[in-house]
Amino acid sequence: MSRSPGRKQENHKISRELFVLTYGALVAQLCKDYEKDEDVNTCLDRMGHSIGIRLIDDFLARSGVKKCRSYSETADVIAQVAFKMYLGVTPSVSCSSATGNEFSLILDKNPLVDFVEELPAERASLCYCNLLCGVIRGALEMVHLAAEVSFLQDRLKGDAVTEIGITFLRKPEDRKHRRN
Amino acid sequence: MSRSPGRKQENHKISRELFVLTYGALVAQLCKDYEKDEDVNTCLDRMGHSIGIRLIDDFLARSGVKKCRSYSETADVIAQVAFKMYLGVTPSVSCSSATGNEFSLILDKNPLVDFVEELPAERASLCYCNLLCGVIRGALEMVHLAAEVSFLQDRLKGDAVTEIGITFLRKPEDRKHRRN
Repeated sequence: MSRSPGRKQENHKISRELFVLTYGALVAQLCKDYEKDEDVNTCLDRMGHSIGIRLIDDFLARSGVKKCRSYSETADVIAQVAFKMYLGVTPSVSCSSATGNEFSLILDKNPLVDFVEELPAERASLCYCNLLCGVIRGALEMVHLAAEVSFLQDRLKGDAVTEIGITFLRKPEDRKHRRN
Repeated sequence: MSRSPGRKQENHKISRELFVLTYGALVAQLCKDYEKDEDVNTCLDRMGHSIGIRLIDDFLARSGVKKCRSYSETADVIAQVAFKMYLGVTPSVSCSSATGNEFSLILDKNPLVDFVEELPAERASLCYCNLLCGVIRGALEMVHLAAEVSFLQDRLKGDAVTEIGITFLRKPEDRKHRRN
């Protein structure tokens, strides 16, 4: 069983279409289960959180990313490494607060909605991709970064872009030298 | 919009871990929704079928696969092209009937259960990956091949391998020249 590193890497790669359609089936099932959009959103966020706290190990092992030194660096890693790895897209990042703890990930194209034309009228408050917010929140929690993560804009709701807002709740500087 | 073929290919590739964990969340939700394993299995198969009838277009467009000339060739394409593309693994194929319409896809490793240790005792009849059977059935249906698809062995249930059985219900030869 000798494999080249390239082969090993490739082994984790899949086409995203099956994932996107399976995610659609999950959202559809939750819409059957819960009448209120808010309950679906909460459930997706909660599921995402459970996924994030497990996915972080895989991410750290395979990305080779080391400890980030700032919120800004963390936001860049989420966009440029994690999104690229898990969704095949790279959102742009902007810092949206003077205090430097609020960031936006802007997706021109959201792969998770590839097969979704628009939300049904009766599901206008659904945050279709809310699982992603939970995943980010859960993964950050495991590297001791508390954050609020939510959709600020959504092309599915007619916005020009899809924007995920991340607000870091504590400064990493507070704990910078704790481990040493 | 000029893109090299390599670039286009890469654009669809993602790491499968997020998919695997999201699939786990879907199965867990269905286990909450339905008490009986059989109902969960049926629901997963039905969801998979809906996915398969949509996924086939993507598959044909991106794989470049043309019309297969035999059941055997079809089974090989499912294993070597479709599984590789969508799950990053290549099952081995064996023909399991003298009539040449029954095939087994044997998975030494099932990527969908990467994060699953074992089924809970009260879920002993759960076909955890039954979505895959539905996907195959739905996709085959769209290329005018009726088939029964089910798990014959499952490592999650203590079997040595995971085996998906495909039984083609009509011979493609019957309709070979219909279109021309």
